[in-house]
Amino acid sequence: MRNIMLKICYDGTRYRGWQRLPDTDETIQGRLEKTLSRILDEPIEIHGSGRTDAGVHARGQVANFHSCNPMPACDILSNLCRYLPEDIGVYSCEEVETRFHARLNAKQKVYQYRIWNSNLPCVFDRRYVAVFPEELNLEAMRSAARVFLGTHDFGAFCTMRSKKKSTVRSIEAIDISRCGNEIRITVTGNGFLYNMMRILVGTMIEVGRGERDIQTLHQLFDAERKDAGFLAPARGLCLMEVQY
Amino acid sequence: MRNIMLKICYDGTRYRGWQRLPDTDETIQGRLEKTLSRILDEPIEIHGSGRTDAGVHARGQVANFHSCNPMPACDILSNLCRYLPEDIGVYSCEEVETRFHARLNAKQKVYQYRIWNSNLPCVFDRRYVAVFPEELNLEAMRSAARVFLGTHDFGAFCTMRSKKKSTVRSIEAIDISRCGNEIRITVTGNGFLYNMMRILVGTMIEVGRGERDIQTLHQLFDAERKDAGFLAPARGLCLMEVQY
Repeated sequence: MRNIMLKICYDGTRYRGWQRLPDTDETIQGRLEKTLSRILDEPIEIHGSGRTDAGVHARGQVANFHSCNPMPACDILSNLCRYLPEDIGVYSCEEVETRFHARLNAKQKVYQYRIWNSNLPCVFDRRYVAVFPEELNLEAMRSAARVFLGTHDFGAFCTMRSKKKSTVRSIEAIDISRCGNEIRITVTGNGFLYNMMRILVGTMIEVGRGERDIQTLHQLFDAERKDAGFLAPARGLCLMEVQY
Repeated sequence: MRNIMLKICYDGTRYRGWQRLPDTDETIQGRLEKTLSRILDEPIEIHGSGRTDAGVHARGQVANFHSCNPMPACDILSNLCRYLPEDIGVYSCEEVETRFHARLNAKQKVYQYRIWNSNLPCVFDRRYVAVFPEELNLEAMRSAARVFLGTHDFGAFCTMRSKKKSTVRSIEAIDISRCGNEIRITVTGNGFLYNMMRILVGTMIEVGRGERDIQTLHQLFDAERKDAGFLAPARGLCLMEVQY
């Protein structure tokens, strides 16, 4: 069996997230599998580096799948470009070693959250930014970000936490930058729990508003979901890169 | 009567162009007029700096309208932001002198055309670029652009030309730049005929492909529509600025 790796970008606006769901075409994984199965004339199951929530975008999602079909990778790519809807793009398709697994081998992921910090989002970016027009103290948000760096139990930053699985993750870097009316929060970590990135952003926004004291943030590592910040909207979030 | 000036941006994808049409909500002018009439509680007619075709975008369209309603301009703006669909944005609303007319007083317009010069457009820009994956000779296109500079009869670069009206226009600047896989053609002129910008771009693309000789371009100023290049797709075009 050949093992094929894909690099994928998508506008998640009209999808119910990455993960395949029964009886709907509105998932990224489902669309990719359906298209690949037709191209390769065999049932294809793909493994993404991780799930993205409904409405979340990706510029650098990675997935792999196995196939017996000898079709050259460049032909698979051109067929994908031809048959996928225009809000899902595959920009790389190559054969990789048999043991490569997009999720199990992922070492780090980079997510970016875009905040439109003014009343009127640019119509061209409206699907890719979340609007928070209030004044946000970026220095306070950067101080909050430093608290999250390192290895911690992020259980409070997770929706529908499993009692059985570890909620310990490591965050390597958080960069917060402003460009005009836009604030971009870029987080690099070894793994992200369900909704974790959006709850981290919601918590940092509460700090930026002056609603939450930085001194209390470390208590969140031993806390409940209700203690952490709000869930920031999906539309501002994008999976930028998966590192192996 | 007060005279109010608006600066407007829009994603033209799902509209049938700027100009109001009977029996449809799918024009920019129609949407703006309907929304303003409701906000100001009187019938409002707006004058745009010019029409944009179906599918063409704007980052800096300018329009004006007259009203008897004393509502402060900042309140009109916030109401517009609240009631307009999210693919039309008004980012400036101010009272101007009575004689100002968005079309009659316009001195120059700046249009930009975005070409995606590779197979796969980025899904995030897909509505705002036209895909031409073939090799394009940018130096030849720049030489072609220099032929178009100045004052000429652009009748061959116009769809549904009127025999009565002048088709003489002046182009002040054409800039062609590449950034990665994207080529941007920015044209500044004192006026643009119906489809003129898109036919200019189509003609320059034919030069870039080597299909059309630069030496023959000056003959187009005394020619028919069929002699000029093809009509480049609307989605790549954006009205960037109107200068007064």
